Amino acid sequence: MRVSLIGGGSVPPETAATAERVGRLAGERGHTLVCGGLGGVMEAACRGARDAGGETVGILPTADPADANEFVTTPVATGLGHARNALVPLNGDAVVAVDGGPGTLSELGFALVFDRPVAGLDTHAVDGVEACDSAAEALAYVEDVVGRP
Amino acid sequence: MRVSLIGGGSVPPETAATAERVGRLAGERGHTLVCGGLGGVMEAACRGARDAGGETVGILPTADPADANEFVTTPVATGLGHARNALVPLNGDAVVAVDGGPGTLSELGFALVFDRPVAGLDTHAVDGVEACDSAAEALAYVEDVVGRP
Amino acid sequence: MRVSLIGGGSVPPETAATAERVGRLAGERGHTLVCGGLGGVMEAACRGARDAGGETVGILPTADPADANEFVTTPVATGLGHARNALVPLNGDAVVAVDGGPGTLSELGFALVFDRPVAGLDTHAVDGVEACDSAAEALAYVEDVVGRP
Amino acid sequence: MRVSLIGGGSVPPETAATAERVGRLAGERGHTLVCGGLGGVMEAACRGARDAGGETVGILPTADPADANEFVTTPVATGLGHARNALVPLNGDAVVAVDGGPGTLSELGFALVFDRPVAGLDTHAVDGVEACDSAAEALAYVEDVVGRP
Repeated sequence: MRVSLIGGGSVPPETAATAERVGRLAGERGHTLVCGGLGGVMEAACRGARDAGGETVGILPTADPADANEFVTTPVATGLGHARNALVPLNGDAVVAVDGGPGTLSELGFALVFDRPVAGLDTHAVDGVEACDSAAEALAYVEDVVGRP
Repeated sequence: MRVSLIGGGSVPPETAATAERVGRLAGERGHTLVCGGLGGVMEAACRGARDAGGETVGILPTADPADANEFVTTPVATGLGHARNALVPLNGDAVVAVDGGPGTLSELGFALVFDRPVAGLDTHAVDGVEACDSAAEALAYVEDVVGRP
Repeated sequence: MRVSLIGGGSVPPETAATAERVGRLAGERGHTLVCGGLGGVMEAACRGARDAGGETVGILPTADPADANEFVTTPVATGLGHARNALVPLNGDAVVAVDGGPGTLSELGFALVFDRPVAGLDTHAVDGVEACDSAAEALAYVEDVVGRP
Repeated sequence: MRVSLIGGGSVPPETAATAERVGRLAGERGHTLVCGGLGGVMEAACRGARDAGGETVGILPTADPADANEFVTTPVATGLGHARNALVPLNGDAVVAVDGGPGTLSELGFALVFDRPVAGLDTHAVDGVEACDSAAEALAYVEDVVGRP
């Protein structure tokens, strides 16, 4: 399946480490990681996914594919600015949110609009987002919901 | 100034009445009302604004300007689907949120991304959104913040 | 009705004069002028429309309504970059193209996708675009097509 | 490099065969094929690319990744409707146009806006588009231009 990772573009090392674990687990389990393609949790998660041999899609707000971080295997430039926030959760079967500010809040809203299961790690407290304590728990949660008949 | 009204597209009468008061006050005070152009709080607020002689801009998710409610004076069709949620807060100097589900949550996120002052009436509890008890209080709040040097 | 004016953002005086005549005629005849909100033919047409007391909608590629030229009565910021080219022809009942480069070509394509009648003044030679010799002829053409039962 | 293939969504067999040859050549030469992800020339080109073991990115106008044709390896749902036409040429280093109607015209416009080299096979006659007689000639043309220092 495809897992969309959303969260802050500039985060402390501990938060980046959490995102990297999400990416690594996703890669190990054969999932494609989808994200916004830039830095912070996006870059950390892509690094983790690549370490595990996974594929990564980066849907960028800018018009230049070269703006993607070095761990993105398929950059998608949009030139849409913040409106691209709709496209990141849309392209995952499930969403994992790590930390994050107002941009992440907009993505959480879209995730729920598109009826995606969402696991949250130290992110906004929003009804419908499953608060998890670890990357492993977050992955297990979204795999379970997506796998239900 | 321009006030963006965000909130649910299908709401109970009491919520619609609150939105209509926001629209009427905005119109009375010479503000242009911006919204998503459809039903629910959007239509109620536009009706209020028109009753007071105000202008209303409806930024639609669909590709047909005729989808706007009858109180929209300037419909703007986008065909962008949910991604148009970015455009509604972007086009207000300030935002008033009334009730609302996940789509409104995405708009609140964008309002904060774009650094707009936001007044909330029975909406999501989000840091940076000023919780207000009445349409009058909401208008007074955003006028005050926008008017500051 | 609403008339979308498309064309170059940086044009010689003679071309600007043509666009201004289109805007003035549209305003005189009670039409709202829709355009991309920036300079060149857009600004000239808006000036003409305002001189005649008409309304003007400027659908901007940028995220700042203040980027609209001074003759735009309703600026609509999109932040979508060039993708906003789809929205300009979409919001007119008909389209008039004046001069223009590749951006205008994309707008002509969209005008035909959306099945809008298009009058062209010294613009790209494209099947489905009615080549006209004057602003008056262009307005007469689109009014005639839109007015047909 | 990445080659964007644009053209009609419903085409005669001969046109589809041309598109398939473009896709196969792109795949054989190690290029990733980018397209709109739907039927007609898009599907034919993706089939050719997959036959040659190449990767294919389908940037869809709809909000459902499942709308991609079966030969798309990375579907990207946008929900943007026709505005997604901007994203297809944007994500190629070069563009090959095969046949096509008004939607293709809008994509040709964007290709030139984004300063991409464009090879055309029985498509609109537009300044800046290199008219070619075969898939091989089209690929050779865009490889040559992109490869120039």
